[in-house]
Amino acid sequence: MEIPNFNNILEAAERIAPFIHRTPVMTSKTINEITGCQLYFKCENFQRVGAFKFRGACNAVSSLSDYKAKKGVATHSSGNHAQALSLAAKIRGIPATIVMPLNSAKVKKDAVKGYGGKIIYCQPTLEARESTLEAIIHETGSTFIHPYNNFKVISGQGTAALELIREIPDLDYIITPVGGGGLLSGTLITVSSVAPNIKVIAAEPEGADDAYRSIQEGRIIPSISPKTIADGLLTSLSDLTYEIIRKYIDRIITVSDTTIIKAMRLIWERMKIIVEPSAAVTLGIILDKKFDFTGKRIGIILSGGNIDLDALPWI
Amino acid sequence: MEIPNFNNILEAAERIAPFIHRTPVMTSKTINEITGCQLYFKCENFQRVGAFKFRGACNAVSSLSDYKAKKGVATHSSGNHAQALSLAAKIRGIPATIVMPLNSAKVKKDAVKGYGGKIIYCQPTLEARESTLEAIIHETGSTFIHPYNNFKVISGQGTAALELIREIPDLDYIITPVGGGGLLSGTLITVSSVAPNIKVIAAEPEGADDAYRSIQEGRIIPSISPKTIADGLLTSLSDLTYEIIRKYIDRIITVSDTTIIKAMRLIWERMKIIVEPSAAVTLGIILDKKFDFTGKRIGIILSGGNIDLDALPWI
Repeated sequence: MEIPNFNNILEAAERIAPFIHRTPVMTSKTINEITGCQLYFKCENFQRVGAFKFRGACNAVSSLSDYKAKKGVATHSSGNHAQALSLAAKIRGIPATIVMPLNSAKVKKDAVKGYGGKIIYCQPTLEARESTLEAIIHETGSTFIHPYNNFKVISGQGTAALELIREIPDLDYIITPVGGGGLLSGTLITVSSVAPNIKVIAAEPEGADDAYRSIQEGRIIPSISPKTIADGLLTSLSDLTYEIIRKYIDRIITVSDTTIIKAMRLIWERMKIIVEPSAAVTLGIILDKKFDFTGKRIGIILSGGNIDLDALPWI
Repeated sequence: MEIPNFNNILEAAERIAPFIHRTPVMTSKTINEITGCQLYFKCENFQRVGAFKFRGACNAVSSLSDYKAKKGVATHSSGNHAQALSLAAKIRGIPATIVMPLNSAKVKKDAVKGYGGKIIYCQPTLEARESTLEAIIHETGSTFIHPYNNFKVISGQGTAALELIREIPDLDYIITPVGGGGLLSGTLITVSSVAPNIKVIAAEPEGADDAYRSIQEGRIIPSISPKTIADGLLTSLSDLTYEIIRKYIDRIITVSDTTIIKAMRLIWERMKIIVEPSAAVTLGIILDKKFDFTGKRIGIILSGGNIDLDALPWI
């Protein structure tokens, strides 16, 4: 299995530079006081479509030959990747087809439509999603862009950590969330090449801890009916992300939904920025103090800010 | 009546520079598309204590002689100025006494205590607040720092527009909210000196439109029982702010609470930042289209981000 290397990430960075936001790194005196750490938040909630996912989707779409590109791209996803792929395709002027379960939330359907994606509905089973997608690809010749089990997507995700390290040197740790492992994999490749002294730690919800268990047991153990407020982290590792994570990860730490919500609210209240639960998992493992981060300089990738404002977890 | 001039604002900028955050200017492609304008948001919600008020309070506290300073500062306020004065005093190492009505929201009391302010409670009437404050000043010799009818406070508030203009040249308009008029006054002094071609427009809630009425009629007409979701804008103009606003203002535009809430939600959803209703009044007047801003380059001062997350206006 071919794993992206640092050159692939540098190429991705150059390829997507005209399209992405170079997101800011923010700090909070109050949260530093509360945690006893120096925290540097890379704000991918300010990325286009509100999540880091645009980096990977944009790199994948931009990498296609003109011949392949004009037949379009497709994916099955109802989350941030669907929006990211729709926007990346729109920018290139090609069609994006998104297979979504019939019962997806209206806010998610509207977001995809807003970015110009074409939605094909299917029954809410994995089998229906896959067979529907396969039929579309067969019919249109469009390219399947997997949300994370994709070389170009992972290379794109690695550019967030690259920007962070270039802006804030001398970090002791970088913490990212882990769901399917695309962001974590890209981060690991970047860090292992540019700053191998920085330890990369992944934060995972207790209710969807397949990455934790997979690394513990040395084989992929997918989540069966995962349940967590962090709805961007329900997916399980893939061949490619497992391979990269297994090779480079320092450790994976799990955290409860209660702490995730507490961390999310702390970020909203003190930093005045909106992050989704999946992003707050990172600060959650620091608040939890199961692992001692005291006095450390820590980069945190706040992965996204897409949340239904009518359904906040504390109300 | 002596009005601050641009030199006073430059002095304030230098005096407070070590203590304030230099807040970012943000843009949003989506909100630009929706409004048909180029909007530049000066994010004072990221200022210390979560509001521009820290600029003025910090300038006022920093300007005191050592002799005056050590007797402390005092004010009657339950909002952002109370927090701002508490933090400014804490930084200088002097006491701050805040007179607050007994029925103030717990979240506001906690915020003041969190920044080290000493709260003295009084009955919830203007008379009780003033007499309690007077007694404290008489007893302690502390200096009253009015939230906006204060030369140094206004000079401090004018530094936000100064940063904005230096970062984004060629603006057609700057929009600020108006409550008591401190931010608006400081902005007017800065703009009239540095960039007299920029028109300054104030945004005011319909339910607290004393500034609009005062400027229309050419005399101060205080609000009687104002009512608006924009709880930072309930106060009425003072001698000093009226004088400055009367002299320099281009126009004041009022907006309904419904539109204020719509504008606030748009900022939350699309920019992923938390602003309070009083800050969203600015975007509200653009969304309303009572005045035609199409195609213009507009600086917007997002005044603050302090809001009770348990009591959002759309829930």
